[in-house]
Parts: sequence; C-alpha cells; structure tokens
Amino acid sequence: MKFLKAYNPDRIKEMMREHFSNIEIETEIIHISEAQYRYSSMDIMSSVNIPDFNKSTVDGYALMSSDTRGASESMPVFLDVSGEVLMGTESHTEVVENTCVYIPTGGMIPKGADAVVMIEYTEKLKEDTVAVNMAMHPGKNIIYIGEDINVDDIIVKKGRKITAFDMGALSAIGVSEISVFKKPKAVIISSGDEIRKPEVEIKLGEVRDINSFVVGALIEKYGGEVIYKSIVNDDEGSLFNEVEKWIDKTDIVIVSGGSSAGIKDVTAEVLDSFGEPGLFVHGAAVKPGKPTIMSCARNTALLGLPGHPGSSSIIFTIFGKELFKILLKKEETMAFYIEAELTYNLTGAPGKETYVMGTLELNDGKYLFNPLIKKSAAISQLSKSEGYVVIKSGTEGIQKGNIVKVYTE
Amino acid sequence: MKFLKAYNPDRIKEMMREHFSNIEIETEIIHISEAQYRYSSMDIMSSVNIPDFNKSTVDGYALMSSDTRGASESMPVFLDVSGEVLMGTESHTEVVENTCVYIPTGGMIPKGADAVVMIEYTEKLKEDTVAVNMAMHPGKNIIYIGEDINVDDIIVKKGRKITAFDMGALSAIGVSEISVFKKPKAVIISSGDEIRKPEVEIKLGEVRDINSFVVGALIEKYGGEVIYKSIVNDDEGSLFNEVEKWIDKTDIVIVSGGSSAGIKDVTAEVLDSFGEPGLFVHGAAVKPGKPTIMSCARNTALLGLPGHPGSSSIIFTIFGKELFKILLKKEETMAFYIEAELTYNLTGAPGKETYVMGTLELNDGKYLFNPLIKKSAAISQLSKSEGYVVIKSGTEGIQKGNIVKVYTE
Repeated sequence: MKFLKAYNPDRIKEMMREHFSNIEIETEIIHISEAQYRYSSMDIMSSVNIPDFNKSTVDGYALMSSDTRGASESMPVFLDVSGEVLMGTESHTEVVENTCVYIPTGGMIPKGADAVVMIEYTEKLKEDTVAVNMAMHPGKNIIYIGEDINVDDIIVKKGRKITAFDMGALSAIGVSEISVFKKPKAVIISSGDEIRKPEVEIKLGEVRDINSFVVGALIEKYGGEVIYKSIVNDDEGSLFNEVEKWIDKTDIVIVSGGSSAGIKDVTAEVLDSFGEPGLFVHGAAVKPGKPTIMSCARNTALLGLPGHPGSSSIIFTIFGKELFKILLKKEETMAFYIEAELTYNLTGAPGKETYVMGTLELNDGKYLFNPLIKKSAAISQLSKSEGYVVIKSGTEGIQKGNIVKVYTE
Repeated sequence: MKFLKAYNPDRIKEMMREHFSNIEIETEIIHISEAQYRYSSMDIMSSVNIPDFNKSTVDGYALMSSDTRGASESMPVFLDVSGEVLMGTESHTEVVENTCVYIPTGGMIPKGADAVVMIEYTEKLKEDTVAVNMAMHPGKNIIYIGEDINVDDIIVKKGRKITAFDMGALSAIGVSEISVFKKPKAVIISSGDEIRKPEVEIKLGEVRDINSFVVGALIEKYGGEVIYKSIVNDDEGSLFNEVEKWIDKTDIVIVSGGSSAGIKDVTAEVLDSFGEPGLFVHGAAVKPGKPTIMSCARNTALLGLPGHPGSSSIIFTIFGKELFKILLKKEETMAFYIEAELTYNLTGAPGKETYVMGTLELNDGKYLFNPLIKKSAAISQLSKSEGYVVIKSGTEGIQKGNIVKVYTE
C-alpha cells in the first residue's frame, strides 16, 4: 500500500479537485417551482427583455414631462385626462401636449408620454382634469424595456444554487423548466463491531450510531442524497464486500469509523483496492480528524472518516462540503464569517490546522465566541455549536479577547 | 370595512403573534433520518446517560495513574499487559497495580483503571510489557458515564429546527422517531389580469408571474409547503371565490399582487369578509411594501402582499418569516448579521422602516455592502442580493463609509 503523509487541508482540497473533477454527475430537467437549493447544470440566458414594454412603477398619470415644468403645490399645472391604460393590454391612447392618461402600476406607458406622476401628487378636479403638483423629469417612474433584464443576459450561472429570487427571475423570462445536476448519490458504511442502530436495545459496551446521521444530514445540506446506510463489522472482508456492492451504484462511498485498531489500518487498504488512481489521502493535518482517507476509483469518490463524532463532523464540514462543490461544479461564493471576540484561550496543535466549534453571543452590540471545549466525542457539544474558528497551522493559538472569524455555515 | 393606519414592523409582529398564535398546526411522527430542517413539536429528553459506560477517547493502555508517577521519556515506567479490551463488549479484566490493559478508542475502561495513556507515549518491549513515557493524571483520556448527556437532559427543545448534529444526538440516546410539526400548508393566489404563467406565450402588456415563485420558495425555506397556486382575475368576485375555496383546506392563504387600482381596494375587504377577528393590518410602515394586508379567520392566516416583486420579497422576508416562527412555535434564535462598510449613501423614507438589499464584498479583510439601488421592480437585482440592511424609521439615512449590519438570512 502507498504510504502518504498527512497533508494540510488546502493541499488536500487541491488533490480532491484533481481526482474528483472527472466524476460525472448526471443532469435532469425539473420545473422551476422545484428548483430551490438545486444546482444549475448550465448557464441560463434570457431570450427576452424585461420589461418587454416601458412600464409604470406607480399608480398615476402618464404625461409629457415638459408639461410639468415649474409645477408645485402652490402652482400646479392642469392637464386633461384623455384616457386610461388597462393592465395587461397594449395602450392605444397617445399622450399629446397638455394631456395625460391614467396608468396603474405595471401598466404600459402610452405613446407620447415620458414620465408618470404619482397619484399622491395630483388632484382630480373634474372627471377629465387633474392638477399636477410636482415637476417631473423625463423617465420619472418609468422602467424601460430591458432595464431589468436584457436579451442574452445570463440569469443563472452553471453551478449556481438556485434561490427563491432566481426562480422568480426564471419565471419572468418565461423559463419554466431548467436542467440541474442530479443529487450526487452517497452510501454510508459505518464500520464497527460496537455500533448499533438507534432502534435497537444496546448491551453494555455497545454504542448507537451517530456519524451516519450527522454525515447523512450534511450530505443533504451540501446537495446530495443518501441512498443507503449500512453497518458492517470491523473486518477487512466485510468492509471490502460492502464497498464492492455499492461502488458502481453510487457517486460517493463513505466509510465512517472503524474504531478498532485493526480496521483503522485496513480501511485505507480496502479503499485503495478498487483500481486507479486509488488512495491519495491518508491522514489530514487537521485537529480533530487526523485519520482521514480519500481514494478515487471507478468514477466514485471513496472517503474514510474518523470514528469520533466530533472529528468526523469537522472533517466532513471541511472536505464533504468541498467534495460537493467539485461534483456539482458549484459557483465560487464567499464563505461569510462573523467577527467575534474570543472568550477563552485557544491552543493550536503543532503542524495542524485546528478547528474549534462554539456558540455566538451578542453582548453590548458585540459578538462573543464561546468555544465548546469538552472532549471531542461529545455529541451534546456539537448540537449546541453555531459556528467554528480555524487556528492555522504554525500558530501557537489565539488569546482570549482577540477578534476571530467565525464561520457559521 | 375597518380603516387601519400603517403600523411599524415591530407592532405588526406583535399583532401577528396575538392573532396567529392560536392557529394550530398538526404534528406527525417521522424517522430522525428525515428530520433535518423540521421543527420539533415537543421537548425531547434523554432517558439514558451518554456514554453509558466509562470510555477511552484514545487508543492506548488503561492503567492506574498512580503507577505512572514521575514517568518520562528518559525514565519510563514498565507495566505488564494483562489483557485487551474488545470493542462493543463489557470488559472483565481488572487492572491492578503495575499492570495495564490495551484499549481501543471507544472501549470500556476496565475495573481498577483510572486513566489511559495514548499508544504514542508507550513502547512495547515484549509481548506482555510496555514502557510508559508520560505521567498520567486520574481521568486522563477517559470520558465518564453521563459526561456528554445525562438522563433527563433536554436534547431537542420544542420549536427547534433539527440540525445534522441533533440527529446524531437523538440517535445516540436511542430515539429513532420524533414528533414534528407538519409543514404549514399555504395557497398562493396571484391576482392580476395581466399575470401569466412562465409556460405560456405572452402578449404585449402582459407579464409573467414572479411573486408566486419567490414567495413559494420562501415558504419552503421557512418550513412550510405550497399546496396550490392559482392566478385569478382582478375582481372582487373571483378573489372571494378563490379564498373561500381554500380557506378551510389550508393554514395560510396569500393573495399576491392585485396591481390594478380596483383590486387594491377590494383585497382588504375580501380578506376581512371571512369572519372574526378579521382584518388587523392594512398598510405597513415599511419601504418598499406599504400595501401589506393581514387578516385572520377560520383558523387560517390571510395575507395580502404588494404586487412589486421587490416589495413583496421584502415584506415576505420580514412578515412571512415571522408567520412561520409563530405557527411552528420556533425556538428564539439570534438573527446573525455581518458588519460591513456602506459604499453608497442611503436615504430612509420618513416614518417608515426602509429595507435595502445589496451585495457583500471582501476588500482588504473588510466587508463592503453595495446597495442594489435600481428600481424596486427589478427582479435581476433581487437575484444578486446577498443580504439587506434596515434603516430605522426616524433616521434620515446612512452615509457612505458607515458600518451597517447586514442580515444575510
């Protein structure tokens, strides 16, 4: 077997990109009303202008701005109302000098008009005369053809996570169905003689499965779906057979745990045994989470995660997120952080990037970050966590009172 | 019809709580693997201790810490290996003075032992002897019974949005099914003679539906589900019939738009006509979004939203989010914000709370907030938005260069 050193997270992400970029995720066509949180598989361009007619943004009167020169509350101008624009129909009334036309919000600006005065700045005197109390400049309260969206504008980029607003924009340009990447399929294999499902009674010494639920939920959060979960015994044969069973039916196989000394050694061997390019990460310079394993074979990403819930959560937050970014060709977006004052001294681990989870608190208008510093196996701690900070390798630690960047996603 | 003044958002939220708190949302039992993003309908307590046995957090040797007093690399202590702890089984070997037992991570601490030395700090000399290079204090590398979770600890509170980590914690305590609120059901009625679905060809003057897609996706984001969408003509009869059709089959009816002057007046009347307590908001002191309507009748929340996509998005971000908070009894959580430097002068609207959407940019380690200041109807602007700032009523505005709070959710 290859012997590999523990790389730092940035180097591991580079290697992931090298190895996993070729894994092809199929696409499917879905209706836009189902598209929230899915990832577009192509650039979507507009074939229309929005608006496709000059449109009023207020309820009021469409008029010629030149007619309102100098108008004010004390000296209004008087215009004849020559008609009304109806919603949803082309308007045929033409505005000529000293006339105006009633127009609702969204109505089409009639020929001749170059501004709309809001109804609030007018006073109806007779059935067909209004006083206008305000001077209008050309274009006032009008949104012009293509001012919002132009023909050939890219509305949604390839790899974009579709938002509520994107769905509105797609509808606006008449796109009701789009092509998205299918959710990458994952199988989670929990290895461990002591691991039991939550449904069953346990004997002293056994523990219930935590990781497959945490990792499974993170997979969904990052855009994938778990098609099967299994628990196998801590031996090479069982593990090999289970991976072999799934490797051609799924995009990702995750081996979680393997907490006995024996299986730790064989997980890497097993994941390396399915062909080229095979194992490329065996150990990450991350605390917690050193025993991280990555391999690629038969168009499938193979990951081995540490057994500790704390470690496996951190590792999957870093590398699982990255995996889905690669598979779904995700658009580069900023990882937003919150700046907060650290309330407790933190120590970095030599030569490792250290991740510390914690809670955020608002105190006198300032955020405080309270690290959760119990033992890493504590699942109760993870549940409370609202974000994490990173202590870069080569840093001794961060002193209480310093401002840290807290990543909440 | 009642005449109501335009209240400020905080007052409206209070009134929403008064009127909508009694709308009862049914509950259902689901498996924890389906629970992410759902809201718990009860406090869930643990009936077990986690761990339920004293457990090693490392691979190493369980020993009596008193035997390692003074041990160091230059002066190790030598211990007899009297056995091995197997994963998942109760250990029967007892550790006595000058002996130790091999133990894997997660293994049960054998009787007599009060610390575990990591394998890295030991050296195996013969089959049954190890040199220990480090002094251990009692409790070292042990997680004790109940140290993570105690019997009767509340693991998930009523109204909590279940996270990946909660799912892990629930599995850990042997809870495989939980009771959650059903997703509140919503029907969206788009009113407008000019509104068309994205699938159909449009004539000049008509526009495609934007709001029902944006609002529908936000409803899903906040924890609900859209059971039906319809487009009705801009007249009182059509609107009344459509609301009547759905009011007893759903928890929320949303009337979006009604952009002609006529229907604006009747939406409030229609929503007030289904019984007590009826209309309680008719106009919000919010910019954009003044024509907001709220009513409550027949155990259903009735909302009228402005027709402008920009306005309706803002209004639903403020009040739709609040509605689901009330219906799902959501746990109080902090609304995280990012502090950013404003890149453009913003003006507040007199007497109104003004919401301005924009994009975030990192510049030299500092966040900048770039307001999107095109006309409010622009859907292309909304798609780009990454957050919003609020200009409180009574404030003239915010000058460029000031630090603002940007809400990204």
